[in-house]
Amino acid sequence: MVADEIPGFWAVVPAGGAGTRLWPLSRSGSPKFLHDLTGSGRSLLEQTHDRLAPVVGDRLMVVTGAAHRDAVRRQLDQLPDDNVIAEPSARDSMAAIGLAAAVLERRGAEVMGSFAADHVIVDDARFHATVADAAAAARDGWLVTIGIEPTFASSAFGYVHQGDVLEGHPSVRRVVEFVEKPSVSVAEEYLATGRYRWNAGMFVVRPTVLLDLLAEQDAAFAANLRAIAAEPERLGELWEKLPRIAIDHAIAEPAAAAGKVATVPGAFGWDDIGDFDSLATLLGEQEALTVLGDPALAQVIGSSGIVVPGSGRTVAVIGLDDIVVVDTPDALLVTTRARAQEVKNVVAALKDQGRSELT
Amino acid sequence: MVADEIPGFWAVVPAGGAGTRLWPLSRSGSPKFLHDLTGSGRSLLEQTHDRLAPVVGDRLMVVTGAAHRDAVRRQLDQLPDDNVIAEPSARDSMAAIGLAAAVLERRGAEVMGSFAADHVIVDDARFHATVADAAAAARDGWLVTIGIEPTFASSAFGYVHQGDVLEGHPSVRRVVEFVEKPSVSVAEEYLATGRYRWNAGMFVVRPTVLLDLLAEQDAAFAANLRAIAAEPERLGELWEKLPRIAIDHAIAEPAAAAGKVATVPGAFGWDDIGDFDSLATLLGEQEALTVLGDPALAQVIGSSGIVVPGSGRTVAVIGLDDIVVVDTPDALLVTTRARAQEVKNVVAALKDQGRSELT
Repeated sequence: MVADEIPGFWAVVPAGGAGTRLWPLSRSGSPKFLHDLTGSGRSLLEQTHDRLAPVVGDRLMVVTGAAHRDAVRRQLDQLPDDNVIAEPSARDSMAAIGLAAAVLERRGAEVMGSFAADHVIVDDARFHATVADAAAAARDGWLVTIGIEPTFASSAFGYVHQGDVLEGHPSVRRVVEFVEKPSVSVAEEYLATGRYRWNAGMFVVRPTVLLDLLAEQDAAFAANLRAIAAEPERLGELWEKLPRIAIDHAIAEPAAAAGKVATVPGAFGWDDIGDFDSLATLLGEQEALTVLGDPALAQVIGSSGIVVPGSGRTVAVIGLDDIVVVDTPDALLVTTRARAQEVKNVVAALKDQGRSELT
Repeated sequence: MVADEIPGFWAVVPAGGAGTRLWPLSRSGSPKFLHDLTGSGRSLLEQTHDRLAPVVGDRLMVVTGAAHRDAVRRQLDQLPDDNVIAEPSARDSMAAIGLAAAVLERRGAEVMGSFAADHVIVDDARFHATVADAAAAARDGWLVTIGIEPTFASSAFGYVHQGDVLEGHPSVRRVVEFVEKPSVSVAEEYLATGRYRWNAGMFVVRPTVLLDLLAEQDAAFAANLRAIAAEPERLGELWEKLPRIAIDHAIAEPAAAAGKVATVPGAFGWDDIGDFDSLATLLGEQEALTVLGDPALAQVIGSSGIVVPGSGRTVAVIGLDDIVVVDTPDALLVTTRARAQEVKNVVAALKDQGRSELT
């Protein structure tokens, strides 16, 4: 099924984040979104583009760090040059998405949706249908978040507490509140109610609604974003004045408290690939060993987990269950799926040791 | 304590063996004995030379494969050129040690001792004293083997069954028999008697006695060895006629049956570094992680075992006990100490796949 384009709808793709829990694949100079983490032959950024193209055509805007602008342009070389915004410095998601909103407001975009550059989605058709429902509610003035159907009681995500169905939009519900990352036991209670969804940071909204919601909380912030959009040469001057704040805190939470947020439940298979454990879950079958890369480079005896032969060298693994082996030209990681989160501690240690060239 | 030289005593160092259980450090083109496996800054071959020099001076002869001759000469550049014998092909230990014996017989050597190029010995002084005792008994015409004091019921070594003390040599005992590698339970019985020692292939003997013992079993074999020694230009012609047989089967076992073998118990700390498990035992403390190489290249969190950062790359290991990680420029091994023996299966698989350049 080929999705219909959604008229006047733009995708905004914030491409940021260091992805330190995916070291040594992901580096500060070459973050997660630039890598093919699923063996598809396409990077996560390219996959994000491919997934959105059926509903937006070329109405897609990437917001990324200045250091990654050229790499983004190379991977998405079909994008018009002014559809890639380079942030002078990282100032969190409100500034990134807010600037895109201000630029799109001037270009006459009717609705926009923000979708991270480094997430994986399994069922594109269901994703497109969900986005279309969200866009329809957004046209009516709502700030719409896509709430991911939880597959387990995760303590790694914030949750969206959903309320009653929105009049005129049978697939859309009002949002009671956003809640922070809970403990596993609280998450289990959330799942038992059937009324909580993962907040994956996918917001669909009219650009003007987004900026006006921001202006209610921080008038200068919204004014500066609109000023940059009107006079792009002022980016350098004004950018450093923008607060570092996540869009959730800046507008989603206060707007929810004011009853202005809705949510569309999404059940299309979603993963943010937080670490090598979740990557192994995504790619592999239980008790199997997944090779991400050239299988001829892996010599495996009696092992399960994930092996990434990423340097051209032969990798032999013998007698290890749930192992994680990631081989790159200058660094090698060996750990277990259960300890995969601690990779970020290695990155921190390398920085402490003055070896940032490896991070 | 500096050992005295043993007059007229020569060391023969067979430098052979692929060491496939130490892959990817040890390769067919660069075997175990050429590597520094103990972090001493000296290869096992160099350490063998250093250990023997106090008792033999420059009376040391290496027998190695033609492919390794240049590497041996580079590492032992103080050796006279004709103290390195290059075998045209590998024909097991009887041919190698027998040829050295034939050459030394012509040079007038009184006694010789064979010592593998890839074993580790902890206490040089006790080793020297043991060799001196063995050489004294060998002068009286005995084939003397050094019997290593067993430290556990190993099924990986053959054993020497020792009998009564030899008259006139209080530290030397008659050998009842050599026994093949036993099961662990049989080895436990051996240890309980206190009369069994590991056979480490260290034979001390007069060259003429050795060749005469061989002639009793295979007159042509001994004659061919003496012919090569007399006319070295016939090496290529005669070498391929020599049987492939271990010195243990060719002479040690029949000589023991004839009551002509004696043994000196050796308790100087000995290891043949059979695999990465024994290397970890040799180098490390229980529940610790040993880095063989530059410690700055290892980033270790909550792990034990052995890490060999051998390619210049950073190696991060998190949350793995008894792990073995060996990093080389073209191949990487990840296994556990308990499974370290299976490394040879990887080498076999690579050969089967036509990738002998890695083996």
